Amino acid sequence: MLDISLLGTGGMMPLPRRWVTSCIMRYNGASVLIDCGEGTQVALREKGWSFKPVNTILITHFHADHIAGLPGFLLTMGNADRTDPVTVIGPKGMGRILNAVRVIAPELPFELKCVEIEGNEQTFAIDDMNVTAFRVNHNITCYGYEIAIRRKGRFDVDRARAEGIPIRFWNPLQKGQTIEYEGRTLTPEMVLGSARKGLKVVYTTDTRPTRSIREHAEGADLLICEGMYGEPDSDVKARTHRHMTMQEAAEIARQAQPKEMWLTHYSPSLVKPELFMDSVRSVFPRAIAAKDGQEMTLLFEEE
Amino acid sequence: MLDISLLGTGGMMPLPRRWVTSCIMRYNGASVLIDCGEGTQVALREKGWSFKPVNTILITHFHADHIAGLPGFLLTMGNADRTDPVTVIGPKGMGRILNAVRVIAPELPFELKCVEIEGNEQTFAIDDMNVTAFRVNHNITCYGYEIAIRRKGRFDVDRARAEGIPIRFWNPLQKGQTIEYEGRTLTPEMVLGSARKGLKVVYTTDTRPTRSIREHAEGADLLICEGMYGEPDSDVKARTHRHMTMQEAAEIARQAQPKEMWLTHYSPSLVKPELFMDSVRSVFPRAIAAKDGQEMTLLFEEE
Repeated sequence: MLDISLLGTGGMMPLPRRWVTSCIMRYNGASVLIDCGEGTQVALREKGWSFKPVNTILITHFHADHIAGLPGFLLTMGNADRTDPVTVIGPKGMGRILNAVRVIAPELPFELKCVEIEGNEQTFAIDDMNVTAFRVNHNITCYGYEIAIRRKGRFDVDRARAEGIPIRFWNPLQKGQTIEYEGRTLTPEMVLGSARKGLKVVYTTDTRPTRSIREHAEGADLLICEGMYGEPDSDVKARTHRHMTMQEAAEIARQAQPKEMWLTHYSPSLVKPELFMDSVRSVFPRAIAAKDGQEMTLLFEEE
Repeated sequence: MLDISLLGTGGMMPLPRRWVTSCIMRYNGASVLIDCGEGTQVALREKGWSFKPVNTILITHFHADHIAGLPGFLLTMGNADRTDPVTVIGPKGMGRILNAVRVIAPELPFELKCVEIEGNEQTFAIDDMNVTAFRVNHNITCYGYEIAIRRKGRFDVDRARAEGIPIRFWNPLQKGQTIEYEGRTLTPEMVLGSARKGLKVVYTTDTRPTRSIREHAEGADLLICEGMYGEPDSDVKARTHRHMTMQEAAEIARQAQPKEMWLTHYSPSLVKPELFMDSVRSVFPRAIAAKDGQEMTLLFEEE
């Protein structure tokens, strides 16, 4: 199962009772954090989830509301006696940002690894998750992220027996190993049924609507999408600042049909996003105006 | 009158319901902020005081809980349409820190001036305040700050008349101007009584007890002082990390006799500082375990 929590839902700056937008997902004992603005460490503490399993931090872009919490977050990880490395993945220039972060937080008791995303789309194997960064459209380089948990087919006892594969190889084959045995090459495909449906979450903020978002959101269990403005006629403002209205997000969801959509990254001026949800739900009914701490657990279909 | 608010009272990291230690003082339409850790902008917003008059930010030292909020704080000042310059005063190396801050917050619509403190003590005239940075004793270079409002003597009408000074010069002389008139040099001293008692606040955290703190705190209206630990036998821990216990702060206050002392910069492990206030008050009775948002207004004696 994949746990997802949206630690904050604000854009631009943290406010009393609204942290800036940041998301954490945990799967199989490892966590991935997306974005780390000022106060994200407090938001995580309020949520009550652990800092310890956060092996990877994904950064969408370099505006301060998405990175200014890095020094404090990393120091707090260090104060919790972390010694395992932490990987930060972000747009080109991530290294330069981390150098600045290290000026403010010079003493970390663990290695900080930096990965700069190349091109318009790149996929990373992170713990047991497949993370794909995909380019979106903001006024500086910005990526959305797809987090996918793939799921192999079920073990097929009848096929394994028909192939005459000794029982001692069943478990390693199920785990994906290939085995040489009496001149034969035994592969997982010989004993596994076709891949089963996995889990997919797509996260994107600070962007105009793009085809890349729509394509990644197709078949997603959850789309977490910016809805910076909600007022009628706010689309001009959204276009000017390269953000998205709640209604534009709804239109993406209508086309991509994820199982559910959470709106986030509200403008500080958008005090009550739920006021605009009727217009959003008339386009895409399974939309939620997310609140700080919004949480969901996704289960595999057979779980 | 001088308004003082302690925006946060924590050390090391911001916690739910406890911001890191930071202080704002406002006098005659201008504000000075001391230290700016992660979340200080939210603490100021919760307090309800304005960002606009903050012309100067004083930094005690470069640990992240005292500087990591600078990018967000400055950006929020910028978002409030500030165009007047902001001056940041701190230890040697302040420029290097501000360069890192500018990597995270590159687009500020105002000039950021940087002043690096020289030597063990330096005084700055800031708006209508006299700010003295004085060296304290931490594991990196650290300063305390004395904020003093000086007050000239009362205008002495009888003396001005006796000196034969025309009435049209009274006001400029009272404001501190010197005037050449009919071969005479007219000075403020000729028409003002002796200086009246002003106001003095001393702020210091992240230090062992020092003579400099004691000397500056003498005659202060308020001493804001670190009291990182309170438990019996925590003095070993305090010495090791170059911090101060609540009881050590009390001893400084007993010697310097400020009118009142606020304790702050509590360790995250010090959940209920008030539990240790009996032992503090047995040494210095006018001590308060400050809380986030603690506030005081100091009036001149004749006000």
